Amino acid sequence: MTRLYDDPSTFTDDMLAGFLDVHRGTVTGVPGGVVRATETPPGKVAVVVGGGSGHYPAFCGVVGPGFADGAVVGNIFTSPSAQDAYSVGRVAAGSAGLLFSTGNYAGDVMNFTLAQQRLCQEGIDTRVVFVTDDIASAPESQIGERRGIAGDFVVFKVAGAAAEEGYDLDAVERVARHANASTRTLGVAFDGCTLPGGTAPLFTVPRGRMGVGLGIHGEPGVGEDTLPPAAELARRLVSGVVAEKPAGSGNRVTAILNGLGTTKYEELFVVWRTVARLLAEEGLQVVAPEVGELVTSLDMAGCSLTLVFLDDELERLWCAPAETPAFRRGRVEPRAPARRDVGSRSEQPAGGRLSEEPSAPAPGSPASRACAQTVVSALEAMAAAMAGAEVELGRIDAAAGDGDHGRGMVKGSSAAVDAGRDAADAGAGAQSVLLTAGEAWAAKAGGTSGVLWGAMLCAIGRGLGDDREKITGSDVADAVAAGLRALLDLGKAKPGDKTMVDAFAPFCEALTGRVRSGAELPAAWREAARVCESAAEATAGLRPQIGRARPLAERSVGTPDAGATSLALCALAVADVLQPAR
Amino acid sequence: MTRLYDDPSTFTDDMLAGFLDVHRGTVTGVPGGVVRATETPPGKVAVVVGGGSGHYPAFCGVVGPGFADGAVVGNIFTSPSAQDAYSVGRVAAGSAGLLFSTGNYAGDVMNFTLAQQRLCQEGIDTRVVFVTDDIASAPESQIGERRGIAGDFVVFKVAGAAAEEGYDLDAVERVARHANASTRTLGVAFDGCTLPGGTAPLFTVPRGRMGVGLGIHGEPGVGEDTLPPAAELARRLVSGVVAEKPAGSGNRVTAILNGLGTTKYEELFVVWRTVARLLAEEGLQVVAPEVGELVTSLDMAGCSLTLVFLDDELERLWCAPAETPAFRRGRVEPRAPARRDVGSRSEQPAGGRLSEEPSAPAPGSPASRACAQTVVSALEAMAAAMAGAEVELGRIDAAAGDGDHGRGMVKGSSAAVDAGRDAADAGAGAQSVLLTAGEAWAAKAGGTSGVLWGAMLCAIGRGLGDDREKITGSDVADAVAAGLRALLDLGKAKPGDKTMVDAFAPFCEALTGRVRSGAELPAAWREAARVCESAAEATAGLRPQIGRARPLAERSVGTPDAGATSLALCALAVADVLQPAR
Repeated sequence: MTRLYDDPSTFTDDMLAGFLDVHRGTVTGVPGGVVRATETPPGKVAVVVGGGSGHYPAFCGVVGPGFADGAVVGNIFTSPSAQDAYSVGRVAAGSAGLLFSTGNYAGDVMNFTLAQQRLCQEGIDTRVVFVTDDIASAPESQIGERRGIAGDFVVFKVAGAAAEEGYDLDAVERVARHANASTRTLGVAFDGCTLPGGTAPLFTVPRGRMGVGLGIHGEPGVGEDTLPPAAELARRLVSGVVAEKPAGSGNRVTAILNGLGTTKYEELFVVWRTVARLLAEEGLQVVAPEVGELVTSLDMAGCSLTLVFLDDELERLWCAPAETPAFRRGRVEPRAPARRDVGSRSEQPAGGRLSEEPSAPAPGSPASRACAQTVVSALEAMAAAMAGAEVELGRIDAAAGDGDHGRGMVKGSSAAVDAGRDAADAGAGAQSVLLTAGEAWAAKAGGTSGVLWGAMLCAIGRGLGDDREKITGSDVADAVAAGLRALLDLGKAKPGDKTMVDAFAPFCEALTGRVRSGAELPAAWREAARVCESAAEATAGLRPQIGRARPLAERSVGTPDAGATSLALCALAVADVLQPAR
Repeated sequence: MTRLYDDPSTFTDDMLAGFLDVHRGTVTGVPGGVVRATETPPGKVAVVVGGGSGHYPAFCGVVGPGFADGAVVGNIFTSPSAQDAYSVGRVAAGSAGLLFSTGNYAGDVMNFTLAQQRLCQEGIDTRVVFVTDDIASAPESQIGERRGIAGDFVVFKVAGAAAEEGYDLDAVERVARHANASTRTLGVAFDGCTLPGGTAPLFTVPRGRMGVGLGIHGEPGVGEDTLPPAAELARRLVSGVVAEKPAGSGNRVTAILNGLGTTKYEELFVVWRTVARLLAEEGLQVVAPEVGELVTSLDMAGCSLTLVFLDDELERLWCAPAETPAFRRGRVEPRAPARRDVGSRSEQPAGGRLSEEPSAPAPGSPASRACAQTVVSALEAMAAAMAGAEVELGRIDAAAGDGDHGRGMVKGSSAAVDAGRDAADAGAGAQSVLLTAGEAWAAKAGGTSGVLWGAMLCAIGRGLGDDREKITGSDVADAVAAGLRALLDLGKAKPGDKTMVDAFAPFCEALTGRVRSGAELPAAWREAARVCESAAEATAGLRPQIGRARPLAERSVGTPDAGATSLALCALAVADVLQPAR
């Protein structure tokens, strides 16, 4: 279990501060993550990788010549925010464009795509490649739905080497996609990890058993089996990945036998002994394999085997030199690049993900400013509700996912309160308060829920505006419906997927219906919140998706969806603000 | 816990086979361990490091240019045998002599010293430096009694860099001793590791507590305390090692914050953040620190802080380039060295510690050959007793040490049976059978008990000779007394130290007394064996030493000493051979 921390809520920043101190000659902290200590040379494509933290040496450990130009660093197992990705990409990008690459998880997909859009709008040609190597997470026919695990390392390395060789952005994107299409991983888990401050692992595996098809965010396997001797485990891993050899592949491969955290090097070497023999028996020639900890999951017990079916280009790029804090190969020819000038950032406290200054909001109309005060009270009530429910939300999230939902909601809602209150105190209207609050929520919480709540609040704010002379119950219901549309557009979840959509849609419908029937907003909201609560409870049971991964397998979970639950709690908390309980 | 293995008894060989496959361009397997894949250049001192395995990347992971020339690889947490150390040293040594370096543990001290003596006899100038960095294992006034933990890494690195720079043997030895004298480590443990095939960890620490002063062989701490927040832990580690700053040291240091196996990188970076601040507050300037897993203890939870008080020479050597499987720094200037020709060894199965051919023993007199048959039966009975007691011996060893005693006794006694039987079948006398059996025991078991049992059997054999016309009970008692003297000479334990000496000395005295009183050998042996059994039981309780470490602290252990217990079991088993129970 994770035992060493100061404040669990600042674990990632504290970790980054230590990392940046040790490797201060090589990497530099910027808002949202880390970049190389040297400027991106003119004409070189920048490769920025990332995702949540808890995977060291992935991903901040692979920033350096021959590998990544920067890493966006989210909280433990939580997607970084779009703001984080934008910030790191903005610093890392030189004149030749930018490639983002991250694992194919809902939160990462949303946040990196939003960052890509913003960077493109600012004139920086930006592409995104999502890694999908985990063969257990979806059938081969739905390869685009698979999640990225240890194969991340391969795609990032190949893209980084290509950029170092002088490939242009089209070519870097092409070879990254090709590396991803050539990479297959299968993993097994023997025990779950414990989050900093947590008291129990996210899952456990009975002694003598193993989870098959692990995730790297503490997700349990998609199946379970007997834990076999090392040689038999090697056989299953090899046969699993070899069965997915892409059509037309040759006989040269590279391999990663990756330890998740507490499966140690000695054990991995014992397994590798048989893996090497079996690959030879398959007629495969193994080039530059890696056996060790490359993409971990805190102190999770387990390992995975990645095979990359090589052509000459992939082999050259995989074998190319790299010099990073955690991974070195060969000799990178020294250039004499300019030290990066991070300007006033270097005056900020050493290490950690530094923050940017917000801009001042526009003033609102009297009615909108009054509404803004109610919005701030509502945000305060939501933050209090989330603080009270944090542990329980984490618990029910861990049943199906990675257990970070409670922490993310607390971070997001409290950041929204602070930002929204400042804006309201400065005279902003409802729209500006909600835009400020939504951006703060997304930036501080990161992850899937962060970006969705951020988008929802912003959409509701745009629905309310800053300039209205009067704000009616119907205006509020319409604004909330705009929030629902933003959720559906960004999150791609459909009704029935057992996500927060299943609680939000009935809430919207009830709110609109009650208001249109002539009810006052406070009464209408309370009734709608009760509908929302029942709908959230109904998300328990058979569900088509597990945690942050794309749909994996039908699985019965006895607890309701964490996102739906927190939405209902927020709706009820706001009802108490609109119509205080007597 | 360790979950991935095939046969626990071949775990180290299986691990080495995998390691050698992955790193086949860099390292080569030889009997007893690994060496660089290239010849030691003419005029270069060879640095051979080692100890038991289970510490990866220590020690086979640091063989390469700028670091070690070879690593002797014992079984998990078990000293390699003198034969292993001799073998690796013989292959690695070039024309400029050899430095052995290993941690200061009884078994390693005996085995590497025996190997040194043999190599010196063969004309290879060989020195040994034992590392003593663990400040918790003995007071500063008894610094030579301390054990080596993560400081091993520093001493090995500095010696390897000095040899690479062209230092002569005197100078390499001098700087290795200086590095050791400048290095201090303090560690803490949060939970014990589980040996391959074991069902429980070697020790556990209650939740919220920590052992202070850990060993790297699964030894628990020498004290216990509350597990504090990371910043407070950093403060205790820093204040502990800084308090031992050697007189006359300057303000430049390097540091290793080492993870033992399941304390992960993220946690170490969180601790490092405060360590770095505190060292700066102490006025110390930190050069090229390392934060990560350098000297592990399988899946043990814990960490240690090592400080090295640098002068210009140590700083240059610590910062010098190195290229090894697990540790790389800077750029080693490429030479074009000869690939090592390991001759017929390369024809042997890939990887693992390859074995050498034994030579044929001399034929014995009829009486000695008859005695030899009894010796073989006695060895068989001992091996059977050890096989039956393996788990229990491991359990009681784990109470004070590293839990490997049962496995070592099984390996040693069964190897002794095989070798002794072959020699007896070939017509050897008692001396030759016991010499063969003793050498096999020491070579296969390794560790402390292996070298001691090997020396005891050899001494008993020399006492019995190959040429006697008659072998009396008195001859046997005298030979056994010679065995005791060998034990005392080699092991340095004194009566009352609660080791096997405390069981063997009363046994010898009783056997000699009964035989001199006119008893027949079978009856005398049985009575002496009962005395031995009682004496072994009396080793329970307060004891001055813990496991394989030198005397550490008074500690009450409820179980008898494992070595004394196995000696008594062997004595009783032999009694049944001499006088079968009716």
